[in-house]
This record gives sequence, C-alpha cells and structure tokens, in this order.
Amino acid sequence: MRYELYYWPGIQGRGEFVRLALEEAGADYIDVGNDPGAGGVAAVQALLDDPQVQRPPFAPPFLKVGNVVVAQVAGILQFLSPRLKLVARDPAAALWTHQLQLTIADAVAEAHDVHHPVDLGEYYERQKPEARRRAKAFRSERMPKFLGYFERVLAANPKGPKHLVGARLSYADLSLFQLLAGLRYAFPAAMDRIEPGLPHCRALAAQVAGRANMAAYLASDRRLPFCEDGVFRHYPELDD
Amino acid sequence: MRYELYYWPGIQGRGEFVRLALEEAGADYIDVGNDPGAGGVAAVQALLDDPQVQRPPFAPPFLKVGNVVVAQVAGILQFLSPRLKLVARDPAAALWTHQLQLTIADAVAEAHDVHHPVDLGEYYERQKPEARRRAKAFRSERMPKFLGYFERVLAANPKGPKHLVGARLSYADLSLFQLLAGLRYAFPAAMDRIEPGLPHCRALAAQVAGRANMAAYLASDRRLPFCEDGVFRHYPELDD
Repeated sequence: MRYELYYWPGIQGRGEFVRLALEEAGADYIDVGNDPGAGGVAAVQALLDDPQVQRPPFAPPFLKVGNVVVAQVAGILQFLSPRLKLVARDPAAALWTHQLQLTIADAVAEAHDVHHPVDLGEYYERQKPEARRRAKAFRSERMPKFLGYFERVLAANPKGPKHLVGARLSYADLSLFQLLAGLRYAFPAAMDRIEPGLPHCRALAAQVAGRANMAAYLASDRRLPFCEDGVFRHYPELDD
Repeated sequence: MRYELYYWPGIQGRGEFVRLALEEAGADYIDVGNDPGAGGVAAVQALLDDPQVQRPPFAPPFLKVGNVVVAQVAGILQFLSPRLKLVARDPAAALWTHQLQLTIADAVAEAHDVHHPVDLGEYYERQKPEARRRAKAFRSERMPKFLGYFERVLAANPKGPKHLVGARLSYADLSLFQLLAGLRYAFPAAMDRIEPGLPHCRALAAQVAGRANMAAYLASDRRLPFCEDGVFRHYPELDD
C-alpha cells in the first residue's frame, strides 16, 4: 500500500506529524508537494480545487490512499495508526491517544498564532507588536501549561513514563517529540527555563530521536530544516 | 447509560456541541457544571485537578461514562456518536464526519480568537484594537472561506445537500448548525452579507432547528443564551 502525502513543499509544518509516523513505520509513501516528479505543489493545489472530489479537504496536509482522501492531522493519524502499528488495539487506549493528539494540535495552533496573532493572511512583519504581546503570554502561561500537562500524563501512565499511552510507542509520542523539537527551535530561551521541570518529556524526546528509523530520517535530507515559513518560527524578539 | 457532561457553567461554549448531540438523541445526561446538585463548577475543577485520574483532560468539556473520561469536543463526539446513532456505521463515512467536525472545531477556535487575539488569559477590553484587526480579517477572509467550504461539501454530497454526510443526520450537521448560530449571533452584519451565498448551509440550519428534539431543547432553559463570556461574542465594533 503506497501512501501519498499532500502538503506544501519546503517546510515541515503540520505535514511533519504525518511524515514522522510514516517514517517511523518505514511505510512506502510519496511526499507529493516535495516531489516534482509526483506533481509537486501544483498537484496539491489541483486536488484542493478539484470539483470532482466528493470529500474535499479544507486545507493540507491530506493523505491519499487508493480512492480515500483524509485530511486534518489528527484524523490522518487516527486513520493511519492501526495500519502502521502506531496505536494500541484497545479502543479506549486508541481514543486516549487521539485525545492527546488533539491537545498537541491545539498547542501547535497556538504556537503558530504567536507569529500571526491578528491576521493569518498577512506577513509576520506586519503584526510584530501584537506578536510580541502574544509571545509573552504564550511563553509564560500557555507553554508551561501544555508541557506541564504532558509531563503529568507521562508521570500518570501506569505502564511507566516512557510513553504517553501504555508500554509501547504510539503516534502521540512521535507528535510530542515534534512539539518539543519545534518549541526548542522557536523559543530556545523559554525552553531552557521550562525544560528542567519536564524530565519525562525530555526523556521521551531523546528516546524517540534515538530510534533507528527516526535517527535515520532526522539525519536525511527528507527532514526539512525548521524555518521562518513554518509553524514553529524562531524570531529572537519573541523569545526574550 | 447516564452520561455526565463536565463544562463551565452559564455559557454554551464548546460544551454546546456535546449538548446538542445528547439532546438530539434524547440521551440521559447530567450537565454537571450547571447542576449544583451534581457538584457544579467545583466538581468540574475537582476532576481536572484529581491526581488519581490516569487519563486527565487538558480542559473542559469532558464526558464521563462509568470509568471512562473523554475530552476534546471532536473526541467526545466521535466516542458518543455510534452510541447515539448520530454517525454512519461505514468507517469511511465516520472518518469523513470526524474530519468535518475537526474543521468546524478550527473555525470555532478562530471565532474565539477574534476577541482574544493576543492574550487568551486577559480580558477582551485589554485587547480591543488587536481584536478589531483580527475581526476584519476573520469577517473578510476566514468566515467566507470556512462557510464556503461547508457549502461546497453539502453541494458535493452524492446523497443530496440536506446533510453533510450521506442521507442521514450526523453530529456534524448539529455542529454546523451551532457554528452558524454562533456566527449569526456574533457577526450579524457580516453574516447578512455572506449568507445569501450559502443556500445549503441555511437550509441545513433551519432543518436542524426544526427537528422535534432540537426545537424542544432550543425553547427550553437548558439552552443557555449566547453571551459575552462564551466562544461566540457579539461586540458591535467587531462587526462593522
């Protein structure tokens, strides 16, 4: 089964949460937006605009498998994870994994809105004073609240703090790794202050990065660098 | 099976998407936050803070059924909907319903951020100029984009435009009704301009409001009024 990931080229963005799952599982996939031979960004836009699609995505990323098109990161991961063996079979555990992913998605959306607080369609440079104010609230209130929550979840796992759910790796672990990586890139000073209180989160991120498939992926050129066109952006004035 | 809905008292908020599903299905439920006899807001806070909860919610709303606690609106609705017969049995149709709910959740989050663009923890009155700017972008770009998307989805439904998914009511229909109701309350002038282009959305909202259980609920005092403490707030200066 070949998976086709549709996402904007050149950035990790929200597509990265799907890439990490596909890479960890060693799945056969095409990254359409980054592959001119597969159609590149024109193919992403064409599928978005195609009036023949009965179940159109609102926005990238979306995944195509045969005739199925699935959008929304959490929805894609819920669909993929049983196929990639990245979620428990127990329905209650799978629901909990999904709930954690949805909370990670909320944190990602807030991290994005730091640099786009008043106009999603306008450049950061046109909303810098507002971004400074939002960044302050994000660093002092929201980041510690979100990360403290995941630390608490790890500590409360009856199977131990190595994973968010049960005793095995799930897609939520991969996503928490990515959230931490993104926040470390965007807000290194704030993370230096917050991370000492997050021993389980730090251990999880290190463990994920050290897995064979993850380490190979992270060292490859398929892992695009963080940059100031993505969700997680490093503007020093937002991290003081 | 008695369901316990935990949410902040006195507002519709995000809890309303769960209430609508429970009400449409005629389910046996307690609205804990609004019911002092069930513990009221203290019970909501107590469960959030309880260190014994192995799968703690990040924030309300959450639903308790026996020993299961589920949070995140889209997660709660996914869990509830087969029990309440508010989703198709076909897994692809259920996944599509969930994807639509996640996109509605994104629209709701953006509607919220209009009045809290730079600091989620600070009063609207302390971020009014920023809110005006965000409102302008929301009214002119994001509202038409989101609502136009749902109009397109209704038009593309092979079973006809009466429902978002297939030929039967689903929780996504109830949620789209609520999104429209909220936007009409918050942005009546903008909606007057946008709605003529949304015949299928308007018909769906009218049809949902006219269903027997919905009409009874909307006329009851369980349907809290929209107000300026909720997600959808009417500030005339944000709707000019």
